[in-house]
Amino acid sequence: MTTRTVAALAALALALSLAPAHAEDLPLSPNGVKTLAPEGAIKSTGTWNLGTRAGDFVYVAGMRGIDPKTNTLVEGDQARVRQAFLNMKLIAESEGASLRDAVRIVVYVTDMYRYRPLVNKAQEELWGKGPYPPRTIIEVDRLNQDDICEVEGTFYAPVKK
Amino acid sequence: MTTRTVAALAALALALSLAPAHAEDLPLSPNGVKTLAPEGAIKSTGTWNLGTRAGDFVYVAGMRGIDPKTNTLVEGDQARVRQAFLNMKLIAESEGASLRDAVRIVVYVTDMYRYRPLVNKAQEELWGKGPYPPRTIIEVDRLNQDDICEVEGTFYAPVKK
Amino acid sequence: MTTRTVAALAALALALSLAPAHAEDLPLSPNGVKTLAPEGAIKSTGTWNLGTRAGDFVYVAGMRGIDPKTNTLVEGDQARVRQAFLNMKLIAESEGASLRDAVRIVVYVTDMYRYRPLVNKAQEELWGKGPYPPRTIIEVDRLNQDDICEVEGTFYAPVKK
Repeated sequence: MTTRTVAALAALALALSLAPAHAEDLPLSPNGVKTLAPEGAIKSTGTWNLGTRAGDFVYVAGMRGIDPKTNTLVEGDQARVRQAFLNMKLIAESEGASLRDAVRIVVYVTDMYRYRPLVNKAQEELWGKGPYPPRTIIEVDRLNQDDICEVEGTFYAPVKK
Repeated sequence: MTTRTVAALAALALALSLAPAHAEDLPLSPNGVKTLAPEGAIKSTGTWNLGTRAGDFVYVAGMRGIDPKTNTLVEGDQARVRQAFLNMKLIAESEGASLRDAVRIVVYVTDMYRYRPLVNKAQEELWGKGPYPPRTIIEVDRLNQDDICEVEGTFYAPVKK
Repeated sequence: MTTRTVAALAALALALSLAPAHAEDLPLSPNGVKTLAPEGAIKSTGTWNLGTRAGDFVYVAGMRGIDPKTNTLVEGDQARVRQAFLNMKLIAESEGASLRDAVRIVVYVTDMYRYRPLVNKAQEELWGKGPYPPRTIIEVDRLNQDDICEVEGTFYAPVKK
């Protein structure tokens, strides 16, 4: 095999491993928890998924500023923080919840002084005049991939009866 | 303008910016999430609110030991930790949930050895003989305002039908 | 009193304080929150309990790798991480929720590079082919008892009507 062939095969293997898990592929849990994998969202490639719906609530995993198009981190601190919120938004919206329907968010940053203002700015842009959700923001030692910000949101989206 | 006038205007501006957001001012979310701003609680002056009600659950933002009367941090570690719990309590009670109706709390401290005993003591005083809620307690790098303790509670308060 | 008597009394006091709180001992909260203390689980000996049920949801306190038989930490990093998940599992199952019924987990580790792979491995073993729940994983400064990993899970277990 030429180096070129090897590279092509590696790219193919990568593409396959990153193939989107379609929601319809994921079975309901015994008690009826729905695992979320909406189109356009980042891909979960490990022992976790993007979100769930259970009853009237939608739970989104901690989201970071990963570009769904490339599955790599967005460049630029402000843009990356904004992307983390956009990733959360897309998953929530796939179940009929807007950012305004967040019941709480928890924000993890690796530098309170440096990144909290960026979080505030991203929220101002995305929530507009609000009301904003309850927020807990803490500075932690480290995030996965040595990232700078992660946001975890819980949403309310009552099932139509 | 005299210095005195400027100072007076600044104080007025501050007072207005700290004016309580009355619950009736805050619209329900598209899916019916109610934003909480009960009388007597601390004021949220940034991109967050104190709490929400969604369905039968009440979600309170991470609370710290801020005195609602002055919106500044309480002096003294034990008193400050206690105030964080009291702030949470007031918000939960505004929706009909007592401390005993907490389904879980998460406590963030900046020194496990130093502040965990203060948390225990505050809980003993406030919950009495219990039962106490499930608790997750972790030591983090930093809290907002370089504070020492933050508590985030979730409560159950079924809507009367 | 002799030293021996004092030691015996201290041991007795410890044994009593470690006595399992039976679920039937724990009253419902005013709003109907049930405190969980299933047989075979670790014992909560402080100002916290293992979990709650409220409505259709089950909330488990942050669990660490404590052996329920001895109420001491399991030896060995991988075994200890696994035990943390097993402790959570037992409590969830006592209310009719399997690991597959987790709506979200939050994992706290004290070294992301060292312990995240152990968490992944434990989850692969316990969840099998999944789907895995949404996960937020962060590195914190310190856990209680200077432990290495703590996992906090929320589960869905609709009340049979």
